[in-house]
Amino acid sequence: MTLKAISAKDAASLDKDLMEMGGWSLDQLMELAGLSVSQAVWKVHSLSAGKNVLVVCGPGNNGGDGLVAARHLAQYGYNPSVYYPKEGKNELYQRLKTQLQNLSVPFITDFPAALKQSHFLVDAIFGFSFGGPLRDPFPSIISQIEQSSIPVLSVDAPSSWDIQSGPPKEGPGAKFMPQALISLSAPKPCVKFYQGRHFIGGRFLSKDITDKYGLNLPAYPGIEQVLEVEVDTEGRL
Amino acid sequence: MTLKAISAKDAASLDKDLMEMGGWSLDQLMELAGLSVSQAVWKVHSLSAGKNVLVVCGPGNNGGDGLVAARHLAQYGYNPSVYYPKEGKNELYQRLKTQLQNLSVPFITDFPAALKQSHFLVDAIFGFSFGGPLRDPFPSIISQIEQSSIPVLSVDAPSSWDIQSGPPKEGPGAKFMPQALISLSAPKPCVKFYQGRHFIGGRFLSKDITDKYGLNLPAYPGIEQVLEVEVDTEGRL
Repeated sequence: MTLKAISAKDAASLDKDLMEMGGWSLDQLMELAGLSVSQAVWKVHSLSAGKNVLVVCGPGNNGGDGLVAARHLAQYGYNPSVYYPKEGKNELYQRLKTQLQNLSVPFITDFPAALKQSHFLVDAIFGFSFGGPLRDPFPSIISQIEQSSIPVLSVDAPSSWDIQSGPPKEGPGAKFMPQALISLSAPKPCVKFYQGRHFIGGRFLSKDITDKYGLNLPAYPGIEQVLEVEVDTEGRL
Repeated sequence: MTLKAISAKDAASLDKDLMEMGGWSLDQLMELAGLSVSQAVWKVHSLSAGKNVLVVCGPGNNGGDGLVAARHLAQYGYNPSVYYPKEGKNELYQRLKTQLQNLSVPFITDFPAALKQSHFLVDAIFGFSFGGPLRDPFPSIISQIEQSSIPVLSVDAPSSWDIQSGPPKEGPGAKFMPQALISLSAPKPCVKFYQGRHFIGGRFLSKDITDKYGLNLPAYPGIEQVLEVEVDTEGRL
């Protein structure tokens, strides 16, 4: 079975459909997306492999998914910390930050030091709406992640990658290949350049929506919010 | 270990704290509460035991938790239907209804017929804010559930029970003893009159909050949103 990818344009339209016609609030969608991210972390990096998880959040909804994931990781017994160099202005992001502060999750400012002390990194910097190029401070952040040996789970897309054409030809991100990727709702086209463990998350689509966008998602198992899928050796979905 | 119960007054105050100081929206809290309800259903009534789950929703937040649970149950492969005789006016409830309609979950009106066709019932009629007495149409609904042999999971409290003093001495609910109960956040005092499987759900409290209300919740296992606890044979927590 070949999973169909959804374009950035269609992914934006799908989110709009969910909120304008589907009755969903951003709070709900982000809660379930972030929950699925936290479950993917649990699958690829058990507590016994090291509790220090650094969640790097970008300024948009991908970063919001990361904030929610960090909260659930704290509940699971990890010691998450959050690096959030360009905070989103949406009041939801500020509320998510408050929730984390009430769980004593630190918001760090010294990224190189935090990178050294962490066992795992969640890349929640940019998602399907990334249009490039990277702006400061993100080129340096991506370079540091790329040069570090820390295992990474990327949310929706490896940050710095073009959503359609994949990794940049040179510069920060050209050699960025996270150990794990969680595609939210459905894979994005750049996944064909990806090699590693691949999960689908965001268990909230209705048949009307999967039909409208021609998605052919396999069934989630049991009560899980996350689904591991195979990427074949030719890099196709 | 004896679990401490939280009074109705403190439970209301805890919710207020979460929303006014904790940064939580009702959308988020209800999503996680309803998710935990759906996971408790999964534990007490597997898909193979019969997919027809009737979710009976009251007009307030308990009913909202039921609406969210019904949505997750549909995603798990159950065939939920919803009985919602007094719809809440909050726009959130209407959005939750839209989400269910988009999953083709039926809102039934013939309760006696639906009761006969169902394999399991979720009682999301009244929660900790129930002050009695039951008003129409709920006395008849409770009596029908009580007289039926259908297994029931109650959300937060068996509906019709006084939150402090338990089952009514006579009339509808006097002999209502659901097979399972999920206490949201923490058990309510009436749980000392309860005999059956008992779960805790709503994995979102911070230490500040559990300290403030003197709660001594056991740890949730792994990534689960629900925790089964023992009720000892003397009916204490």
